Amino acid sequence: MLRKEKDFSILPQVNHKGGEGTIYVKNFLELEEMHGAARCAGLSIIPPGCSIGEHAHIGDFEIYYMLEGKAVVKDDGVEKPFEPGDLLWCDDGHTHAIRNIGDTDVKYITIIFYTFDK
Amino acid sequence: MLRKEKDFSILPQVNHKGGEGTIYVKNFLELEEMHGAARCAGLSIIPPGCSIGEHAHIGDFEIYYMLEGKAVVKDDGVEKPFEPGDLLWCDDGHTHAIRNIGDTDVKYITIIFYTFDK
Repeated sequence: MLRKEKDFSILPQVNHKGGEGTIYVKNFLELEEMHGAARCAGLSIIPPGCSIGEHAHIGDFEIYYMLEGKAVVKDDGVEKPFEPGDLLWCDDGHTHAIRNIGDTDVKYITIIFYTFDK
Repeated sequence: MLRKEKDFSILPQVNHKGGEGTIYVKNFLELEEMHGAARCAGLSIIPPGCSIGEHAHIGDFEIYYMLEGKAVVKDDGVEKPFEPGDLLWCDDGHTHAIRNIGDTDVKYITIIFYTFDK
């Protein structure tokens, strides 16, 4: 099935994980379409001045693949620049956070997979 | 863990699924890092004139999220233009194919998730 970006459902999240402002996820697939493998797959958009607070993943793991904008992440508590082409892998049992430090939207792919081998 | 694009492992695939030429997957995660949820997560690159042939997914499902270039896909046998921002979802039991019809690389995100609910 081919789905155009205008047809993705949009999930706004306010002060997500204790972050600033409102961020958005444009969902590639809905939860019931992911056959139990994952619980989120989409394009995340963080407007200027907004962020997702630091949080842990337990029982699942997440990847961010950076497309556009200027961001910093926390990767197990350590701040790092996050640039287009970078991957942030928050493995099961680890923590992360992300913040837009530019003046344009930060856009990245986000996938949260469930963990099946522990 | 933050991983730079230069550190992604690269999988070249020749005449993949009966397609033309050589395509490349820059892996975000290695198979053993995906905890049984998925078997591929990466940035796919199809050079001009190259393609992936039509094939079915059984026991898993795949998404392509288009980033750059000019492509056509087959979606259950039907040819459709595939443009930046589009998602192609090849659900379990369905078929797809992709071909670069431009003069620059086609780049898209590819994730192959396993199916757990049937």
